[in-house]
Amino acid sequence: MKFASYHDGSRDGQLWIVSRDLKSAVPATGIATSLIEAVEQWDAVASRLQVLYDRLNAGDEPFATRFEPERCLAPLPRAPQWLDASAFLNHGRLMDKAFNIEPNPDFETVPLIYQGASDDFRGPLADVAFPDEAMQIDMEGEFGIVLSEVPMGTTVDEALTHVRLLVQINDWSLRAFGPREMRAGFGFLQAKPSTAFAPVAITPDELGPHWANGRVGLRLHVSINGREVGRAHGNEMHFSFAQLIAHGAHTRRLSAGTILGSGTVSNADRAAGSSCIAEIRVIEILDEGAPRTPFLHWGDRVRMEARLPDGTTPFGSIDQAVVKA
Amino acid sequence: MKFASYHDGSRDGQLWIVSRDLKSAVPATGIATSLIEAVEQWDAVASRLQVLYDRLNAGDEPFATRFEPERCLAPLPRAPQWLDASAFLNHGRLMDKAFNIEPNPDFETVPLIYQGASDDFRGPLADVAFPDEAMQIDMEGEFGIVLSEVPMGTTVDEALTHVRLLVQINDWSLRAFGPREMRAGFGFLQAKPSTAFAPVAITPDELGPHWANGRVGLRLHVSINGREVGRAHGNEMHFSFAQLIAHGAHTRRLSAGTILGSGTVSNADRAAGSSCIAEIRVIEILDEGAPRTPFLHWGDRVRMEARLPDGTTPFGSIDQAVVKA
Repeated sequence: MKFASYHDGSRDGQLWIVSRDLKSAVPATGIATSLIEAVEQWDAVASRLQVLYDRLNAGDEPFATRFEPERCLAPLPRAPQWLDASAFLNHGRLMDKAFNIEPNPDFETVPLIYQGASDDFRGPLADVAFPDEAMQIDMEGEFGIVLSEVPMGTTVDEALTHVRLLVQINDWSLRAFGPREMRAGFGFLQAKPSTAFAPVAITPDELGPHWANGRVGLRLHVSINGREVGRAHGNEMHFSFAQLIAHGAHTRRLSAGTILGSGTVSNADRAAGSSCIAEIRVIEILDEGAPRTPFLHWGDRVRMEARLPDGTTPFGSIDQAVVKA
Repeated sequence: MKFASYHDGSRDGQLWIVSRDLKSAVPATGIATSLIEAVEQWDAVASRLQVLYDRLNAGDEPFATRFEPERCLAPLPRAPQWLDASAFLNHGRLMDKAFNIEPNPDFETVPLIYQGASDDFRGPLADVAFPDEAMQIDMEGEFGIVLSEVPMGTTVDEALTHVRLLVQINDWSLRAFGPREMRAGFGFLQAKPSTAFAPVAITPDELGPHWANGRVGLRLHVSINGREVGRAHGNEMHFSFAQLIAHGAHTRRLSAGTILGSGTVSNADRAAGSSCIAEIRVIEILDEGAPRTPFLHWGDRVRMEARLPDGTTPFGSIDQAVVKA
């Protein structure tokens, strides 16, 4: 199934079901008013949502209208928790070099996850406002999962039963604050403003064999002002989402609707490009002695979309302009 | 005004107004169903809540009943954000020694704030369950504020106009994870399970002169199994809540209902004791060469209450037992 949340003035948006080809949509009226309600009540509503989805895909749904991404908020405009990992170690290694930070000795065995703000996510086409270009505005293309309630102490083996939905993420970052906040040890705060999401959240079955081993096996195409800079593949994720769930739930319960991110999608193969500018710049420093690619300027547009082998985009696209607050 | 949230099966609890002396209470029926709703709609509901509060204090409220802390959830059982600082530098200096961490050079000028989980706060008398004593179970006695919506870029001068309520906090901590998570740079996750709150949230005017300069000027009495270990005073907070708000809102908007914590209340005067065991232990190491006080064991009880000079407890008391999950 595919879901979107249309702007209706409420904090959580109005739940719509979107057709597999992203061409049509229908409100989930009478089943669940919002996506968070559907996730919280999943066992009670999933079969009815599936009936509506099947009817929509068959062209049999009389209330279907054209799917309108421009009406979309983030699929979950707010969530109980937002936990973001750094599970692509190629990215982690490069960022440690960029920030001049010594990696932890258990870098390859213990996942790194930070707690982000989950009260104010951005929609897929919303302008992104910041106070100052000197904050070094950057993007981070990621995959993520939306969870059912996860009890404290859930193991890696049990973890994937809690994955309800997959999402695609731009974790906006302000690099001027990152190195200091990492060195101070309390994690990211000013470095991580509100995160943006592609318009459509999907159930894992929508990806068929491309959801496997707790990883999203798709390329994430990232472009700045129409120029593609990244096409990294999700299958190079070092820690699986199962490992990330177990790590996040080790000492706490995760409420239904918690979102867990993969961290920047990144491949060892340089031909795959990069899903963030900081990584591009550190590669330029390593290869050429100095960074060449600037951070984002006012008016720059960032587009991100994961693609299936047939070129279709299961989550739709993130396409946002950076503007001055 | 004083507020509590009674357990009624809902996620946010039922809003009750509590009398100044914490002896009686009345539901805020017809004004706001929950405290988060009251905070979000503050300008529309505050004057009606005040009328009810005045009637309750005057003994003129026919629906008043005895205040029952045992029915209380945290005043906000969940919140949009939970930001926790380390604003008492005496504590920060000692913890850096305990964790063997080199303090940041801007330690005294830039506040340290971590983003915590805000979806699952504990009530004042609820048992606190953890998987394993070896996780080094500890408490942290703190003061906190509940905010109205804070726009991105709010300055220190404007910040205190956004303080709606004051709260008292036990930020439960698992010390076995803290040093590693600080060194890894992504901040606390496993080290910071669900936080607990005293039963009553109060408007700042309730403290009279003891709310001044963006600080709660009260002693926080902390005891373990009936033995008082801390009575540190809130007026030694190095960064004011105004500075913490401005730091937290520098690159993001804070939704109404965001909770901001002071970090462990701590005084340079050793006679004030400590509001957490880690601090007690590092002082023992410095003074005696080795720690003597153990972390918490199953069945241990932790009690925390701020007291006015007349001995009354404006927030009520936190009194929790540590149990095996």
